[in-house]
Parts: sequence; structure tokens; C-alpha cells
Amino acid sequence: MKSPAAAALQAHYLQRISGLNAVRLLETPTPRGMGEKEADKIMALEAAGLEKRLDNDYIVCLFDRGQEMNSTEFARFFERRAAQGTRSVAFLVGGFLGLAPRLLERADLKLSVSRMTFSHELCRIMLLEQIYRAFSLMKGSSYAK
Amino acid sequence: MKSPAAAALQAHYLQRISGLNAVRLLETPTPRGMGEKEADKIMALEAAGLEKRLDNDYIVCLFDRGQEMNSTEFARFFERRAAQGTRSVAFLVGGFLGLAPRLLERADLKLSVSRMTFSHELCRIMLLEQIYRAFSLMKGSSYAK
Repeated sequence: MKSPAAAALQAHYLQRISGLNAVRLLETPTPRGMGEKEADKIMALEAAGLEKRLDNDYIVCLFDRGQEMNSTEFARFFERRAAQGTRSVAFLVGGFLGLAPRLLERADLKLSVSRMTFSHELCRIMLLEQIYRAFSLMKGSSYAK
Repeated sequence: MKSPAAAALQAHYLQRISGLNAVRLLETPTPRGMGEKEADKIMALEAAGLEKRLDNDYIVCLFDRGQEMNSTEFARFFERRAAQGTRSVAFLVGGFLGLAPRLLERADLKLSVSRMTFSHELCRIMLLEQIYRAFSLMKGSSYAK
């Protein structure tokens, strides 16, 4: 998160979610001192950082050509996971280069939040807002409209 | 804009766009002291506030069941408007109830930025980010990836 405003908005949604369910935000460090020519290396380093944190989670990779759903379907996705005893769901959001192919291959679900391409910072905020909305929908809260 | 964080992020994108093209953000006051039972009245008041500002603009209404496009197609939309001599494009974003039917009927384009439902505050930020991205794409700037 480079933009303080984006970081603040992210914190806003994280705080709202934390009142409803256990959510943790884990960030891997951005590899430094490498140019875009080393894209594969940067993505591999980011992937290694993410893989260390994965522990038998249901893996959802954010991917621009992934499956689209509306907010109700997204809430149902969580209901299905709960019904099937999923312990935790890991949402992986790539950096500016996207996620490494090996993470996409490992995904249980590739999810697209929009056909449009958003900055990875904004994408994260959008995802958090949708997670909060999904939990609100399941609880029958009035936020979700 | 109730959330200071959302307002700050909106200002961030507005400032970035202002370096590229002339964009003005116009807000109509939220009708006060009315409950959800008066939804039609609230939407009509909001519509009247927006209509006062419209001046032969090309009207794009944000609408959840509207046309989806990717970011490249959205940039082409601006190129087509420029080629056809459109003086200005007005993007209308509704409040928490959405836009009044009479505004949707008047729209030259109904646009959906995602199948998911986002808060109208976040929706506005997403739209600004896409406008900035579209202008960057047209200018060949490196932001747009």
C-alpha cells in the first residue's frame, strides 16, 4: 500500500469485517531493486512469500479472466465453504504483475471482481468490501444493499 | 462521502485525472429526514439535483445490470466520444437507492463496472480509477498496467 488514502480505506473495511468474522491480512514484501524485465523473478519471489503462509486453505486467486459472480453468489460461496467444513479461505491478490502461474494452477477458484483492470491496491479494497458485504448478507444485516 | 478514507482516496484519483483532462465532480445533497419508505421521493429529489447540472452531455448511468466492458474497451469508449465530437460526458452515480428510472431512461449508456454490488462511495472511486486508467491508456502512459 503506497497511497495513505488507500491504506486508510482498506483499514476501514478490515475493521468492519473484524466485527463479524476472523479475517487476517497478510502481505509479502515487494522485491526491491528489480526492473520489469525480471517479471518472472519478481512473481516467483512473491509466490514463495505467499506459499509460506498457505496452510491447507481453500485458495482463491484474484484473476482478471476468472469467474465473475454477483454479491449474492459471493455470499453463497462462503455458505458452501462453511457447509463443506472449509477451515479457512485464502484470497491471493497479486502485485502489479499479477500472480505467478504456479499459484493460479493451485487455485481452487479463480475469481474476477470485474472485467475492468484495477490497481492491485484498489482491487484489495474492493475484495474486502465484498467480503464484508457477503458476511452482512449472511447475517441479514442492513449494510448489504 | 461519509468515510474520510474513501473521500481521501477519491481526491487522490481526482487529482491524478486533473493532470490529464478536465474532470469535475459534482455532488447533489442527500435528502435528509426521509426513511427508506420514501425511496421514490428520495430518488426523485436526487434526480432533480442531477438534472439541473446536465447540459447536453453524453449521459452514462452507472447501473448494476448495465453493459460491462474491460479497461481497454472503456478507453475506446472515450476515443469514440472524442471522434464524434462529444463535448462532455456525464457519469451519474446514484446514492444508496440507485438512480431514478427517469435518469436511466435518459442514459446514452448504462455502464456496469462489476457484477458485484459495491457501496456507492467505493463505486465512485472505482469509476474515477477507470477514467484515469483510460486516459493513461490513450496517452500511452505506464500507469495503465
